[in-house]
Amino acid sequence: MSVPPNFANTDTGSGSRQRLTEANNPSSKVLRLPQDQPLRLACDQLLAPISIAYETYGELNADKSNAILVCHALTGDQYVASEHPVTKKPGWWSTLVGPGKPVDTNRYFVICSNILGGCMGSTGPASIDPATGKPYGLNFPVITIGDMVNAQVRLIDHFGIDQLFSVVGGSMGGMQVLEWAASHSERVFSAVPIATAPRHSSQNIAFHEVGRQAVMADPDWCGGDYHSHGKVPRNGLSVARMAAHITYLSEDALHHKFGRNLQNRSQLTFSFNADFQVESYLRHQGSTFVDRFDANSYLYITRAMDYFDLGASRGDVLANAFRGTKTRFCVVSFTSDWLYPTRESRAIVHALNAVAANVSFVEIDSDKGHDAFLLKEPEFFATIHGFLSSAGVKRGLKV
Amino acid sequence: MSVPPNFANTDTGSGSRQRLTEANNPSSKVLRLPQDQPLRLACDQLLAPISIAYETYGELNADKSNAILVCHALTGDQYVASEHPVTKKPGWWSTLVGPGKPVDTNRYFVICSNILGGCMGSTGPASIDPATGKPYGLNFPVITIGDMVNAQVRLIDHFGIDQLFSVVGGSMGGMQVLEWAASHSERVFSAVPIATAPRHSSQNIAFHEVGRQAVMADPDWCGGDYHSHGKVPRNGLSVARMAAHITYLSEDALHHKFGRNLQNRSQLTFSFNADFQVESYLRHQGSTFVDRFDANSYLYITRAMDYFDLGASRGDVLANAFRGTKTRFCVVSFTSDWLYPTRESRAIVHALNAVAANVSFVEIDSDKGHDAFLLKEPEFFATIHGFLSSAGVKRGLKV
Repeated sequence: MSVPPNFANTDTGSGSRQRLTEANNPSSKVLRLPQDQPLRLACDQLLAPISIAYETYGELNADKSNAILVCHALTGDQYVASEHPVTKKPGWWSTLVGPGKPVDTNRYFVICSNILGGCMGSTGPASIDPATGKPYGLNFPVITIGDMVNAQVRLIDHFGIDQLFSVVGGSMGGMQVLEWAASHSERVFSAVPIATAPRHSSQNIAFHEVGRQAVMADPDWCGGDYHSHGKVPRNGLSVARMAAHITYLSEDALHHKFGRNLQNRSQLTFSFNADFQVESYLRHQGSTFVDRFDANSYLYITRAMDYFDLGASRGDVLANAFRGTKTRFCVVSFTSDWLYPTRESRAIVHALNAVAANVSFVEIDSDKGHDAFLLKEPEFFATIHGFLSSAGVKRGLKV
Repeated sequence: MSVPPNFANTDTGSGSRQRLTEANNPSSKVLRLPQDQPLRLACDQLLAPISIAYETYGELNADKSNAILVCHALTGDQYVASEHPVTKKPGWWSTLVGPGKPVDTNRYFVICSNILGGCMGSTGPASIDPATGKPYGLNFPVITIGDMVNAQVRLIDHFGIDQLFSVVGGSMGGMQVLEWAASHSERVFSAVPIATAPRHSSQNIAFHEVGRQAVMADPDWCGGDYHSHGKVPRNGLSVARMAAHITYLSEDALHHKFGRNLQNRSQLTFSFNADFQVESYLRHQGSTFVDRFDANSYLYITRAMDYFDLGASRGDVLANAFRGTKTRFCVVSFTSDWLYPTRESRAIVHALNAVAANVSFVEIDSDKGHDAFLLKEPEFFATIHGFLSSAGVKRGLKV
């Protein structure tokens, strides 16, 4: 039996993977914060200069009251409703965000920025370290969700927006929403944390650690210095993505989508080929991810998620994060999401209730798992549309 | 920030890992089937010669009616109730099997053999291929659960046992129990499939595929020929084990055991060190596993589990596997097991009910996840003890 031809180790990919730093992602708008405007990070380091790559959709109204900040998830980016420059695919939330969509860009001014630590134009571990003139690699400081949000605050300041009409995001995007609402409450009129958690669970830390170890185990990672060596830890990052991808789906979704269906073959091959469709699907997810994502960014962003614990620095009482809030909340979970199950959303709602906050909570019935928040789920879309419309009336937005 | 010292890639381990083939595991009893007694495999190849390493506990009675075959899981071995020669730990089921234990070796003659494809003395990919004089590596044929059971049949023949009093096993061991009951019904008086499934789910195939890709992505795997190169794919196998280990525990178990507890430190280190106890635990699971297990065996055994589908070759009707059976069944599942959830056991029970088989079904309340079957669970132990005692009376065993 020979080594299977479609096995990840032998898949050299398109070779098209570029280091997408601010220098070579000219397609995005970029806010540049110079050396004398550093960001103080949670680890107490100062980071400068900083680039924040972003996209906007729709028009900011005269009193700057219609701005919605969309926060992206672990492997997302600023292309929420426009074509991705690498994959050429439609924006990752273009079903939800756009003209006439639930997040209606005819009505709202939508801002989405690549997170700090990302690899689509914002400053991250692939950016040039001014101290060395080389990519940061592991010299990039470990950042937090709070640091990401503080970078976004600079962007909102840049637009001269005092208060965002809404902050919306799913998964890690939802963590940013919660951080905004907790740390910058007065600047958030409404908040929509979706399929997320107030702190990262033990199991989720565990899955992230597997992914990081897979990346670090790849000799082409070169101790984080792969850029200087002209290498990319393709195999390690691919395995990390495969493991993570399973957690984005539900067992039911996998069962209905693939079951034990065989891949282009009428029977088992008695080999390590991708006999089952689910194997082929996962391999594809792994190898295509490597073409669009930076391995070190993956390490840093997963670490930021692991570190997220909104109550920890507030006397370990989650409700303290929201005390006195005037923000209107819409919390959304999905029944089959086992990565951020409904009980995590309930913990958020309980904390908000404990401080008598204005909160509605919707659990959407779906068998699509965590991924449901990225898919066309009519009840979910109706929820977002309804909440924003109603909040818009309260905010005095013209219909 | 430097590369963390306790990160798996830099962990060279004890270096004590030996290739545990029949030649260098002299501690075990071994049945040797010579070249002229080959095993015809499901893939239609003939395999010979074959070694089956095994341990026994207790005494076989005069009419050979008190024999219990215990079938081990993916990473188990024949040392069910005696010290493991590599780890020096007690037998993996020594809480359940032994004098006065639920599987009472004062009463029953317990046989446990290392599965075909394993690495503790039975023939597997690390064994010498007689055609080349070198380890099989990827030239070892892809085997099935049915092949493993057929090898066990030879061992039972060797003992001159016509009918086993019981076949007992959890997880992949449970698959072997089901295969025995389906394909060798007349030789099985009673059967105890625990925390198992009649076919491997899409999600479980997916997790296995991640593990295999992690092994194969390790350059030290050498296309499966690492023995010849004097290497061991430590990092890849370690990542595979880490990913799998998460699936053996429940989220509750992880939460109660580790939560977000920090590892020997009062606060976050803002690094990729194992800040969280759960990270440290997983890294330990990964690195110690590599010292006792062969990477290619891991590939072959996971593949055998993926291929397991008891109904597939029987008109896709699971009940056909048990039609006419006289075997007494005791099916056991655990509430928090999400790898082989209770609904899988129910599918077995429904199929047995459909052919009016003698079956009892117990779902044990436990928050320990899949691992519960290996732990001291009083209700589980009482179930096994009660079922075997009652079956013993029916079999006419002396109390």
